[in-house]
Amino acid sequence: MLNKGRSEEELFTFFAETKNEDLDHDYIFSSMCTIPHSVAVRAHCMFMETNLGDPGLFPGTTALEKLLIKRFGDLFHCPDAGGYATSGGTESNIQALRLAKALRHDVAKPNVIVPASAHFSFKKACDILCLEIRKAPLTTDHRMDADRAAELIDKNTVALVGVAGTTEYGMVDPIADLAKIACQHDLFFHVDAAFGGMVIPFLNRPIPFDFTLRGVTTIAVDPHKMGMSTIPAGCLITRDKEILNTLNIDTPYLTVKQEYTLGGTRPGAPVAAALAVMDYLGVEGMKAVVAGCMKNTERLIAGMETIGIPRAATPDVNVATFVCEERRIPAPWKVSWTCRKHLRIVCMPHVHADRIEAFLRDIGDFNA
Amino acid sequence: MLNKGRSEEELFTFFAETKNEDLDHDYIFSSMCTIPHSVAVRAHCMFMETNLGDPGLFPGTTALEKLLIKRFGDLFHCPDAGGYATSGGTESNIQALRLAKALRHDVAKPNVIVPASAHFSFKKACDILCLEIRKAPLTTDHRMDADRAAELIDKNTVALVGVAGTTEYGMVDPIADLAKIACQHDLFFHVDAAFGGMVIPFLNRPIPFDFTLRGVTTIAVDPHKMGMSTIPAGCLITRDKEILNTLNIDTPYLTVKQEYTLGGTRPGAPVAAALAVMDYLGVEGMKAVVAGCMKNTERLIAGMETIGIPRAATPDVNVATFVCEERRIPAPWKVSWTCRKHLRIVCMPHVHADRIEAFLRDIGDFNA
Repeated sequence: MLNKGRSEEELFTFFAETKNEDLDHDYIFSSMCTIPHSVAVRAHCMFMETNLGDPGLFPGTTALEKLLIKRFGDLFHCPDAGGYATSGGTESNIQALRLAKALRHDVAKPNVIVPASAHFSFKKACDILCLEIRKAPLTTDHRMDADRAAELIDKNTVALVGVAGTTEYGMVDPIADLAKIACQHDLFFHVDAAFGGMVIPFLNRPIPFDFTLRGVTTIAVDPHKMGMSTIPAGCLITRDKEILNTLNIDTPYLTVKQEYTLGGTRPGAPVAAALAVMDYLGVEGMKAVVAGCMKNTERLIAGMETIGIPRAATPDVNVATFVCEERRIPAPWKVSWTCRKHLRIVCMPHVHADRIEAFLRDIGDFNA
Repeated sequence: MLNKGRSEEELFTFFAETKNEDLDHDYIFSSMCTIPHSVAVRAHCMFMETNLGDPGLFPGTTALEKLLIKRFGDLFHCPDAGGYATSGGTESNIQALRLAKALRHDVAKPNVIVPASAHFSFKKACDILCLEIRKAPLTTDHRMDADRAAELIDKNTVALVGVAGTTEYGMVDPIADLAKIACQHDLFFHVDAAFGGMVIPFLNRPIPFDFTLRGVTTIAVDPHKMGMSTIPAGCLITRDKEILNTLNIDTPYLTVKQEYTLGGTRPGAPVAAALAVMDYLGVEGMKAVVAGCMKNTERLIAGMETIGIPRAATPDVNVATFVCEERRIPAPWKVSWTCRKHLRIVCMPHVHADRIEAFLRDIGDFNA
């Protein structure tokens, strides 16, 4: 550590230089995060010092968290839903599986069934929670094979997981079929809608994935992805308002007596930011954002196919994938690659139509 | 969800009203968090949209995280230390125990030994990680009884935990003795210095708790507590630079191939904020802050004893406890209570000397 410290000017000159090394969002085509909305930043700054881990000190901010959960309850067709603001999809998924396991504490060797396309956080969650992970294969359209998933269920299965908006191919698993299977087997059914939860409800032709389906127990949704909030903003939404209390542990010396969250100290700022975006835009505003992203996705796919790079899938949400070799992508565009080596581009709100056109021109010239 | 959204003006009027319901920090005497330093807020805003979960996109911000870890390595006398920025003490403690368990994956029924005074996050961690928790009793001075801790060790013990700055009584466990025991038994030894890690190194008479002690494996320290950073800012520091790789899981489609963190998307903003405070203040600045907090703690204890409210302990760090009934505390002061029903006050940087005097006057009048 420095002994005497640095002047504020020197420090922020250094920070500005350091920040210049970060990539320009104009070229970031690989991320499921985006530049936060201006109302998100404003709200974040307003609630900068708040701690949701000690709600008795911050009853106002705590009310905003309740309101955010209520907004998602309404959006997901379960106005009485419960839940809380997490640090993101990974925490939401860990907590959902932790809850599923706690509700079946009689099971000695618990397992969970996830699609082969599930986000790597499920591997992390199962490793941490001592759960056996069983991966159900996909059908050729990159969606979970519900029949094959059903075959994996046994008396030690404590949870079934479906994904609404997969990270790699932007697909929505057959959530309705999976929900039926969950009902038949009286299984905890968690839907990972970290990405899709702020896309699917706003599509022209929404795909069933939420609490309208009787079997759905919990939903993960990340405002810091398509919700254009600041980081870290995730939510775990539960159909049963009280179910998270199963995870309660005693918390002395705080203003609450028990806590079911994964973290202790939790920032209120990104929660205010998430709510700010939702309330500022409303359903109509979000529909416009999502329509723009979907239009850009379709344009990108059409443009790439015109220059001889075929799609790898026709996605349900704004993630485009292509059959394309890595050497065909010119610098400085930052794209990503799926496990099966397909080119992957996420058309987030910061990926404007003109950036898509610039990318298409560049890749066309580079491969001419 | 609202259909048409709200105007920005209407939204922020509502937010301002809501924020008014939060408690005034002038009266918050119960929290281990504080008002972030102005350089922390400035740095936070500068790095608002950065995501450390995808370091290839944010090499500048990632360099700041490395620098923050380096600062703590220097401060804790292990310049080559490893580690990463967590969401806070709970994640740091979970990850330390996860690591200890992973390093001893041959043990079928692993247990960990913590002091009876350990933060409740250890109960959470053990619940999540399927670890047996063994609580070592304290000596009469509220510190872990090292001899009794040693008696709890058996062949299934994967970790020993000591606390440097306990949440309830502000005590530092006999870390040197515990480190020796850890060496003797070749045990993973985690020091929870979430609070004390930014206090003890700056005391006039520092207490040994860090990597100078050969047995210490990992240290948790929270910049969002006495480091006056924004929330969420924790750090897990490891003596061995590479040891966290034990927790690596594969991460397709990101700019890195593997990840050992608990979270996925991780905010860069509070990391920049934490580094900003450390580099702006330096060791001398932090010494001044800590000296002020310790002086206020001593003045509070002396003042309370003058009005007939005796101390419950003589703390090592800026946490004061008293033998006092709840009914003796006037509104609107927000204090807290230990498990053993002692009054507990944390003299954080926002608890200025004049607030201590105001509190002493109020409690004196109220009980006159």
